[in-house]
Amino acid sequence: MAPPSPRLVVPIDLKKKPWEQKYPLHNRWHPHIPPVGDVTEGEVFRVEMMDWTGGSVADNDSAMDIKSLDLTITHYLSGPLRVSDKGGIPAKPGDLLAVEICNLGPLPGDEWGYTATFDRENGGGFLTDHFPSATKAIWYFEGIYAYSPQIPGVRFPGLTHPGIVGTAPSLELLNIWNDREKKLAEKNPNSLQICEVVHQRPLAILPTTRNCLLGMINDGTPEWEKIANEAARTIPGRENGGNCDIKNLSRGSKIYLPVFVEGANLSTGDMHFSQGDGEVSFCGAIEMSGFLELKCEIIRGGMKEYLTPMGPTALHVNPIFEIGPVEPRFSEWLVFEGISVDESGRQHFMDATLAYKRAVLNAIDYLYKFGYSKEQAYLLLSCCPCEGRISGIVDAPNAVATLAIPIAIFDQDIRPKCQRSLVGPRIVKKLPDVFQCSYDGDLPITPNLSKSKEK
Amino acid sequence: MAPPSPRLVVPIDLKKKPWEQKYPLHNRWHPHIPPVGDVTEGEVFRVEMMDWTGGSVADNDSAMDIKSLDLTITHYLSGPLRVSDKGGIPAKPGDLLAVEICNLGPLPGDEWGYTATFDRENGGGFLTDHFPSATKAIWYFEGIYAYSPQIPGVRFPGLTHPGIVGTAPSLELLNIWNDREKKLAEKNPNSLQICEVVHQRPLAILPTTRNCLLGMINDGTPEWEKIANEAARTIPGRENGGNCDIKNLSRGSKIYLPVFVEGANLSTGDMHFSQGDGEVSFCGAIEMSGFLELKCEIIRGGMKEYLTPMGPTALHVNPIFEIGPVEPRFSEWLVFEGISVDESGRQHFMDATLAYKRAVLNAIDYLYKFGYSKEQAYLLLSCCPCEGRISGIVDAPNAVATLAIPIAIFDQDIRPKCQRSLVGPRIVKKLPDVFQCSYDGDLPITPNLSKSKEK
Amino acid sequence: MAPPSPRLVVPIDLKKKPWEQKYPLHNRWHPHIPPVGDVTEGEVFRVEMMDWTGGSVADNDSAMDIKSLDLTITHYLSGPLRVSDKGGIPAKPGDLLAVEICNLGPLPGDEWGYTATFDRENGGGFLTDHFPSATKAIWYFEGIYAYSPQIPGVRFPGLTHPGIVGTAPSLELLNIWNDREKKLAEKNPNSLQICEVVHQRPLAILPTTRNCLLGMINDGTPEWEKIANEAARTIPGRENGGNCDIKNLSRGSKIYLPVFVEGANLSTGDMHFSQGDGEVSFCGAIEMSGFLELKCEIIRGGMKEYLTPMGPTALHVNPIFEIGPVEPRFSEWLVFEGISVDESGRQHFMDATLAYKRAVLNAIDYLYKFGYSKEQAYLLLSCCPCEGRISGIVDAPNAVATLAIPIAIFDQDIRPKCQRSLVGPRIVKKLPDVFQCSYDGDLPITPNLSKSKEK
Amino acid sequence: MAPPSPRLVVPIDLKKKPWEQKYPLHNRWHPHIPPVGDVTEGEVFRVEMMDWTGGSVADNDSAMDIKSLDLTITHYLSGPLRVSDKGGIPAKPGDLLAVEICNLGPLPGDEWGYTATFDRENGGGFLTDHFPSATKAIWYFEGIYAYSPQIPGVRFPGLTHPGIVGTAPSLELLNIWNDREKKLAEKNPNSLQICEVVHQRPLAILPTTRNCLLGMINDGTPEWEKIANEAARTIPGRENGGNCDIKNLSRGSKIYLPVFVEGANLSTGDMHFSQGDGEVSFCGAIEMSGFLELKCEIIRGGMKEYLTPMGPTALHVNPIFEIGPVEPRFSEWLVFEGISVDESGRQHFMDATLAYKRAVLNAIDYLYKFGYSKEQAYLLLSCCPCEGRISGIVDAPNAVATLAIPIAIFDQDIRPKCQRSLVGPRIVKKLPDVFQCSYDGDLPITPNLSKSKEK
Repeated sequence: MAPPSPRLVVPIDLKKKPWEQKYPLHNRWHPHIPPVGDVTEGEVFRVEMMDWTGGSVADNDSAMDIKSLDLTITHYLSGPLRVSDKGGIPAKPGDLLAVEICNLGPLPGDEWGYTATFDRENGGGFLTDHFPSATKAIWYFEGIYAYSPQIPGVRFPGLTHPGIVGTAPSLELLNIWNDREKKLAEKNPNSLQICEVVHQRPLAILPTTRNCLLGMINDGTPEWEKIANEAARTIPGRENGGNCDIKNLSRGSKIYLPVFVEGANLSTGDMHFSQGDGEVSFCGAIEMSGFLELKCEIIRGGMKEYLTPMGPTALHVNPIFEIGPVEPRFSEWLVFEGISVDESGRQHFMDATLAYKRAVLNAIDYLYKFGYSKEQAYLLLSCCPCEGRISGIVDAPNAVATLAIPIAIFDQDIRPKCQRSLVGPRIVKKLPDVFQCSYDGDLPITPNLSKSKEK
Repeated sequence: MAPPSPRLVVPIDLKKKPWEQKYPLHNRWHPHIPPVGDVTEGEVFRVEMMDWTGGSVADNDSAMDIKSLDLTITHYLSGPLRVSDKGGIPAKPGDLLAVEICNLGPLPGDEWGYTATFDRENGGGFLTDHFPSATKAIWYFEGIYAYSPQIPGVRFPGLTHPGIVGTAPSLELLNIWNDREKKLAEKNPNSLQICEVVHQRPLAILPTTRNCLLGMINDGTPEWEKIANEAARTIPGRENGGNCDIKNLSRGSKIYLPVFVEGANLSTGDMHFSQGDGEVSFCGAIEMSGFLELKCEIIRGGMKEYLTPMGPTALHVNPIFEIGPVEPRFSEWLVFEGISVDESGRQHFMDATLAYKRAVLNAIDYLYKFGYSKEQAYLLLSCCPCEGRISGIVDAPNAVATLAIPIAIFDQDIRPKCQRSLVGPRIVKKLPDVFQCSYDGDLPITPNLSKSKEK
Repeated sequence: MAPPSPRLVVPIDLKKKPWEQKYPLHNRWHPHIPPVGDVTEGEVFRVEMMDWTGGSVADNDSAMDIKSLDLTITHYLSGPLRVSDKGGIPAKPGDLLAVEICNLGPLPGDEWGYTATFDRENGGGFLTDHFPSATKAIWYFEGIYAYSPQIPGVRFPGLTHPGIVGTAPSLELLNIWNDREKKLAEKNPNSLQICEVVHQRPLAILPTTRNCLLGMINDGTPEWEKIANEAARTIPGRENGGNCDIKNLSRGSKIYLPVFVEGANLSTGDMHFSQGDGEVSFCGAIEMSGFLELKCEIIRGGMKEYLTPMGPTALHVNPIFEIGPVEPRFSEWLVFEGISVDESGRQHFMDATLAYKRAVLNAIDYLYKFGYSKEQAYLLLSCCPCEGRISGIVDAPNAVATLAIPIAIFDQDIRPKCQRSLVGPRIVKKLPDVFQCSYDGDLPITPNLSKSKEK
Repeated sequence: MAPPSPRLVVPIDLKKKPWEQKYPLHNRWHPHIPPVGDVTEGEVFRVEMMDWTGGSVADNDSAMDIKSLDLTITHYLSGPLRVSDKGGIPAKPGDLLAVEICNLGPLPGDEWGYTATFDRENGGGFLTDHFPSATKAIWYFEGIYAYSPQIPGVRFPGLTHPGIVGTAPSLELLNIWNDREKKLAEKNPNSLQICEVVHQRPLAILPTTRNCLLGMINDGTPEWEKIANEAARTIPGRENGGNCDIKNLSRGSKIYLPVFVEGANLSTGDMHFSQGDGEVSFCGAIEMSGFLELKCEIIRGGMKEYLTPMGPTALHVNPIFEIGPVEPRFSEWLVFEGISVDESGRQHFMDATLAYKRAVLNAIDYLYKFGYSKEQAYLLLSCCPCEGRISGIVDAPNAVATLAIPIAIFDQDIRPKCQRSLVGPRIVKKLPDVFQCSYDGDLPITPNLSKSKEK
């Protein structure tokens, strides 16, 4: 009588590499990456996935794997899956694909994750000018809770979600992506100061055959070569959803994705046990392997019905999301603010990116006063369920962004008080800290780097 | 036995002008604006305030008052108040002033407010290139609820809060503000394209004697002249708090403000019945007159204890906030996303301001499909309790911002559905709309302006 | 343009007695108590009210007023109000009256309340065999928060609500009430052991002319005499709503009341700043004077449409309620359990009343270990926002009831812990306590009375 | 590095009977039931369990298995487990055992459950006089959601929890239980009218060797015989926790259990996907097999430290509970009320059990008007996340109990409205209904039985 348990359409064997899986993974977006399975509207199916690096990061005592990580491998995705209705008719371009997340979690037997920040020469993070070194913290799970031996004194329930859910782009959309990102990449990054960071690497990450993995298409074949040279990288979120990193897409959420190719070609990956808004340290969620149990519905003609293109073509749309009902409940929040004035005291005009950077830096400095190293605080704010808000975006010249931290995740009361027995940096005893590699880059580092190590 | 009711330290008579009040208001930040009252640590006191325009906007059927509003008058603030401890010793520079919002609300007998957007030539708003005209909607209150005859089909409980709470800056801090904003203002706005808007007005709003009101200091005196030429405008939020527009600062919240002058000189104003994150239409909350019941605590030496300067001097700090426990409870949210690609299809690098703009535009276009004019949707998203989030800020080149709307505020189900009896623009009957003035500016308007009026 | 502010239909002057008010109060239910005002469907109107005792309890240092309180005076209600639709047609028997609570609060200038328990000879409370003496605690308000000098270390936001909202009964319904309560009152209370309490007073409180106040009807007239001898007491909740004491009926709630007489004759009173489920100490909420802002809607024929009589006549119905959206938000709760075994160890069959009694006693004993006297804990659990649940009602012979306390209302962490620096009764210093009168009753008190005073 | 995955200490093979499991189950409480495993303070371990009937109820189209169920088999529990600290010292009588529920869920591959009510002759339910027949509904799970083909139009997220978590009683405590329940059982049930139900079966369920299963102790041995004659049935919750049926004990909750025997001997079972407060239909949760991931902490001497005996011996205590942070979030509730007047119109004194019965009956009748059969509504209210509250317990003679239903679980708006397109019983088309067996009992049924079938 009972419907079968969720059908496992993409199994993962964690002892194997991404390309050795039964259905080899892919790490690019392209309409010609062939589906590895079929799913039907209304059925609940299960997709398993490796962590975004395909197992490159280990549960060990060093950040060396983070420092040497080759980012051309990211992200290893499961799928694509071809979605049809109960009559067997596939989703068509112009439809909207409603994907409900019925359940998700870590893969059984692999209940751990990591949060890290890359070396400044290798991708960095949101605050790479302040934190140029590769760092890593390991998180272990106790059911809904995560804790890290490297960041003692915090434990929190996960708002678990996939960082990436997306449909395949059409060739036309893919060309739009490649064109616009190429134009950006051709700018001289030295001429662009973003949040005071002098960038030397390209501003956008263009298609490359290096480490390109295309699922069922064999490496080195002419087909692989052609696709690899066209296929979009998975790092930015785009019109097809993709790497949105919306931390609230947990159990019971629904994602309304535009369909650009027949069958929709749904891919997913980059599971996060928990993430803070912004995922500021870049490798910033609690990254893990995991599983999703999904259910799809096809809204025929839904793109025209519900989405409005905002650009030169009808393809310039964005997905819509509905939040699920079982988020962890926090009642007390401490909120930090940033405005668009940079570390040198220079005023910028309505820059929400800079304002959020300042809010995060303020929060890091505050937590430092409660005994955390700045590196610990940076990783924590990247992965705990903190909320990043655009509070004011009209009061020229200052954008106001805020970062709200749930107080209950700490084992001490972190509110300001009239009398406080300060622990913070004054405590002499050596506490655990995140794993860290030295920074060997030759870039000049701005003078106001974290000094927490010196004290 | 009972402690007295909250002591009314700043009364407002709505029949009088800002400068006719018992304690005349002020609309600038300056250390030499004299306190109009004294409050003691621990006492609950009441401050009344005019709406931010000092009564310039009327409950009538026209947006003309919005179109002609002189923004040099803003914001009319109540105070400053000098805060001392129970021993009579005033707050000192370096202290932290914890201000608890015990209660707040509209002024009895004046239970209405307005949401508006300015003419593009007169301040505009976040989406001024799409909405160049002045518009206005009136909101009436039924206890905790607000509704607008101009935006039918929505009713929501207010998350009422003051847009502005701040302490007076020291002269040193004031100089820092004026210096950095002057440098920005001296840039050619035409050379700076922010979110595709070609700005012609200065990028920062410098001190001006025009319409300057300095409380107890008489207009036109040499003292007034000197202060008026130095005093900072109230529009941007800064180190002293000020116009933060953090929509969650409602009943039970605490604001930890740095103290820069003896007595702290606390000012407040710009009461909002409700606001969405970002306050996108600029005059964008439900603006109203109102009252605050506050309680202060002085954390001696708290600036050094809890705040870390992030800039060249020890004054580069930001306030900290604690959210109160009685926010309206919503369980279902629809979320719109934006990425940092602009309306022309051009890719920008990690621009959260642009990403949020796109999220708001997506939401406006979506609501248009449910029967709202785009002007209605713009004003609604500016003042209803929607949440603006920075979801991803590291996945180059796309910042991802989201806007989450509580579904329960609508009297129809606005979720995407397989079968929907569409109302939207197809309905012929003339519905109410916001009041609107024509735009007479000579600026070229970008081609993708709202077309809702033409259909 | 704006609709007028809420129209004040029942003003209260706190310097006057209930019978001296502009619209004298009433303390009985009867169809012939004449309306004191008219209200129209859709209008927001304001009703003010005295505290339930009509000002008999003072903000002083003694529980003597509680001990000597004559309960024949209760409850002093405001109204009745006659409700008509916009066409002037009054609500009719068989309609449903939807009453929305738009706003409410204490009367300005009277921001205090009290929680008390009566002497065992004078009404007692839920735990009167354990707490036979009259006690009293005073609460002061700071906006949304209440605190009591007699119960230090707690402060909580109010979930403010009217204890009583009801429509007038028809004569037929009144007769049903009087008949069934008379039958109960005629039982020998000594023969009924309820929760081990030997009752000597009547089990139901029948009509009495003593202290009967009937609004606009003059005392002592034949009309008064007739009505007073028939009119139902206000203590129990019944088919017309009345004294439901549902603590969640705060801002934004809706009450769907059956209409039994033309015009509905809506009365209200017994405002509570806060109450725990069960209101266990009887005078157990934070009792206060206050105001309500209400809006009515008439659902024509709604009784038949929505209510199902469950008894011999069509009048045996109950109101329906809808909870508002702005309740205080708590995320952490400590839960105490009771089962239907009494203090002597005797097993009862599925007695939820007894099970809840045991849950409350367990919670009181627990709080005693954290430094509160049992009297303090009893009053606190009666008025703080704790939740009383029927958890299991089928697992014979034990009903299981639970009492959940929000942890955040205490200034200490009250969770069980491996290492705790105990404060509790071991602390020698004299702490404040509730005001208490000696119990002079001649009833035998069961041996397991509170011993907290002896230590 | 990583701690191992949760250690599986009690595996279940659903193809086997309770007595065929690797660690045979037990269905009685007794100190001499030997532990089947050891767990250490701080480790996360996994316990699997059969549904409470040990697999006696099938996913089929009939309620016959419910009608013929032999209740002497209940409940099949997993364990007991012996708990020691990290030094190997077991929990001791007088300690408090803090059991954290880290995770839980259905057994993989067995994602379904059932809700049922027993025949009146075979245990009945809370409303057995109204619903004397055995009925059954099957629920299927889609991740966090459950839906039933027999109760269409509802779908809700589970607040999954174990119905039973308990420690073994000491012999002394076991004797107390047996004594007090025997005294109750010896009463003539005909003399006791509980909620108007004439009971013919014993009021308490005493030890019996029939179907007694004692884990590792072989059936029929003298040891088994002795224990079986003493061991307490598992139906009522008692001092050791046991069948508390507290619906909120989900992920992240903590249960503080008194320890009565060395090692604590922790047992658990009766997993519920979801339950309403009261579990009114008796077999009333969504009953299923499942797993728990638990972590224990021993609070040495915690019974004396935190619990207060309320009875003749130090053993008369109750557990304490702490609620977890991930409950489903509902914002809109419809509330039904009951008072202690029974269906015949008779007034009872402060009977919360009766008041809750009336609240549930009111809610059932209300849902009937929206198209549900009364049997569907009864089962739904038994298993959906509705809240049963004791609202007023002091307003003699009426106890007031309330039942709050989350509106969002229905696919129609069930609020009272002025204009409603009524579906309810007026719809002719045959809808699905629960499976039902005829009632063959010879008891006189009270006249006000559900009439939904007749229409």
